[in-house]
Amino acid sequence: MSRFWSPVVERLVPYTPGEQPKGGTFIKLNTNENPYGPSPRALEAIRASTDGRLRLYPDPAAADLAQAIGAGFGLGPENVFLGNGSDEVLAHAFHAFFAGRGPILFPDVTYSFYRSTCALYGIEYREIALDDSFRTDPADWRAPCGGMVIANPNAPTGIALPLAALRQILAQAPDTLVLVDEAYVDFGGASAAGLVAEFDNLLVVQTFSKSRSLAGLRVGFALGQPPLIEALRRIKDSFNSYPLGHLALAGALAAWEDRAWFEQTRAQVMAERGRMAAGLAGQGFQVLPSATNFLFASHAALRAETLLADLRAQGILVRHFTAPRIRNWLRISVGTAQDGDALLQATARIAAARA
Amino acid sequence: MSRFWSPVVERLVPYTPGEQPKGGTFIKLNTNENPYGPSPRALEAIRASTDGRLRLYPDPAAADLAQAIGAGFGLGPENVFLGNGSDEVLAHAFHAFFAGRGPILFPDVTYSFYRSTCALYGIEYREIALDDSFRTDPADWRAPCGGMVIANPNAPTGIALPLAALRQILAQAPDTLVLVDEAYVDFGGASAAGLVAEFDNLLVVQTFSKSRSLAGLRVGFALGQPPLIEALRRIKDSFNSYPLGHLALAGALAAWEDRAWFEQTRAQVMAERGRMAAGLAGQGFQVLPSATNFLFASHAALRAETLLADLRAQGILVRHFTAPRIRNWLRISVGTAQDGDALLQATARIAAARA
Repeated sequence: MSRFWSPVVERLVPYTPGEQPKGGTFIKLNTNENPYGPSPRALEAIRASTDGRLRLYPDPAAADLAQAIGAGFGLGPENVFLGNGSDEVLAHAFHAFFAGRGPILFPDVTYSFYRSTCALYGIEYREIALDDSFRTDPADWRAPCGGMVIANPNAPTGIALPLAALRQILAQAPDTLVLVDEAYVDFGGASAAGLVAEFDNLLVVQTFSKSRSLAGLRVGFALGQPPLIEALRRIKDSFNSYPLGHLALAGALAAWEDRAWFEQTRAQVMAERGRMAAGLAGQGFQVLPSATNFLFASHAALRAETLLADLRAQGILVRHFTAPRIRNWLRISVGTAQDGDALLQATARIAAARA
Repeated sequence: MSRFWSPVVERLVPYTPGEQPKGGTFIKLNTNENPYGPSPRALEAIRASTDGRLRLYPDPAAADLAQAIGAGFGLGPENVFLGNGSDEVLAHAFHAFFAGRGPILFPDVTYSFYRSTCALYGIEYREIALDDSFRTDPADWRAPCGGMVIANPNAPTGIALPLAALRQILAQAPDTLVLVDEAYVDFGGASAAGLVAEFDNLLVVQTFSKSRSLAGLRVGFALGQPPLIEALRRIKDSFNSYPLGHLALAGALAAWEDRAWFEQTRAQVMAERGRMAAGLAGQGFQVLPSATNFLFASHAALRAETLLADLRAQGILVRHFTAPRIRNWLRISVGTAQDGDALLQATARIAAARA
């Protein structure tokens, strides 16, 4: 506390990011990073941009990258907004579309960053309770509200909402903005990007951090009809005109264009996910069906907090959340086959020791 | 306009960044970029970080860089907040310290981004009129207010406020946060960083874009006592926990440590500034005394808008603002000696043609 803090700071409940240990000795299955690394072409493009041109401000409109991303979805650059990671894009979108309106809706179990961002902009929210299998019914999203936020696939559950259900939500609330956060969509979800032309109340947000394996470069984007993109641009130009530097622009463009690397690595992640899920199920874990690069798992006999601590002691980091409904669950990122083996051996050892 | 826009978007007056032409044929003296390029060591450090580690999230606390920057000012990492360019740092600071308070004060002629950021967060402001020589008197900053923002040296005038005057402003308003924006301080101003330990109402903001020649990397920072840094961290962690990627962290650290490059290039800029100022004065321009990497100049016989257009026709971009008091002034960035020669030849030609 300080007499200089604005009322905004006092009401904040900052998001706690997963641990980023400084040493390299942990197997990091705690922040949903991609084990395979970015496209070699992206690294090459970054190196080729690392020169005296860094003295110059980057293109504030990120026109080339917006063009390329738009084209990938059959959209134009006027449908694309770029930001410094998808968290920045989400925050600007909350500010642009939800601030000063009635309560917005999102699931009771979802990305906890939404609550932090609501506090930041004084946005009220109402949580829609997921059912016992962590699924949602479009009929629950009918209440008049200031907006809706749906992570699809959802986090930390990993469960995907079918596109037909999302279409129903969009259609039944044509005057309500629906923000669909597709951070994990490339690992088995169905993107709503194809609905952008049809629904002017749809904003889709994606990231280069997961399926393009560029969490360390900081690039995210939104797709929507031009009035939505224009609102985000206005917010951005009142905040920081240049969210993406030259290296982020160059690396993201090359990563986007390297479709082969993207397809190959996401297939590898999905295959390993299946193997890890089967292994955990074989050890008595309940594992939710995942359309992401992580698994959400709970063990009948072992408390999640025990597992969290015991795994850490064996050099494996996973993520645990303390919200009541998911207190006995762990979110485990999909790593390499070697990481998966290490995890399964560790959980087996813990089960044996604690039995 | 769109029915989805929040009231925030409707009230915005976005900052208009200077033109970033896509071709390389212009002499760019319009966005205060450094002509000499970043430290070769910074480029090397970026290249050395361009590898598979980009799959990982960066350190959200930017601890190594905060440590190095703090040490440079005799401060600790707890006194340093890092952001994605100083505009982001400024925006977070406005949100953290000024939102929900009474009107803040800044000069009537200053960085126009402050007005945009006030609109973004619904902050009211009152402008303190500079005198006819674009200077300010500490006595004018006595009114009770929600905060103060002082660019020192000021932009676009280039004029520095002596540290004694700043100290007076800080001392006479001990319960008011004073944000000192030192984007240009390394070109001849006196930094208030040395006052951080003494004044808990002081926040100093600097950038790597100008004197470190890294506008394209996007790194800025704030210095202040720990409660101020903590407020900024809370805002950041409700907005985007990872504003700086690995490459920005690595490049900025190496640039910070290459003191020799910094000293040499800023000396070159200051020398060329003197030569350009003398040349313009010799052609009948009034040139304000600059402690920055730009000149603010006005010609008695030639309208600024005419000069702007004629210079552009000759391949030279400079910056013009339309606010009434400075409508007949141009802001001209200091480039290389070759850029300076080109500018002086062009202004001479324009004067001859328009005489």
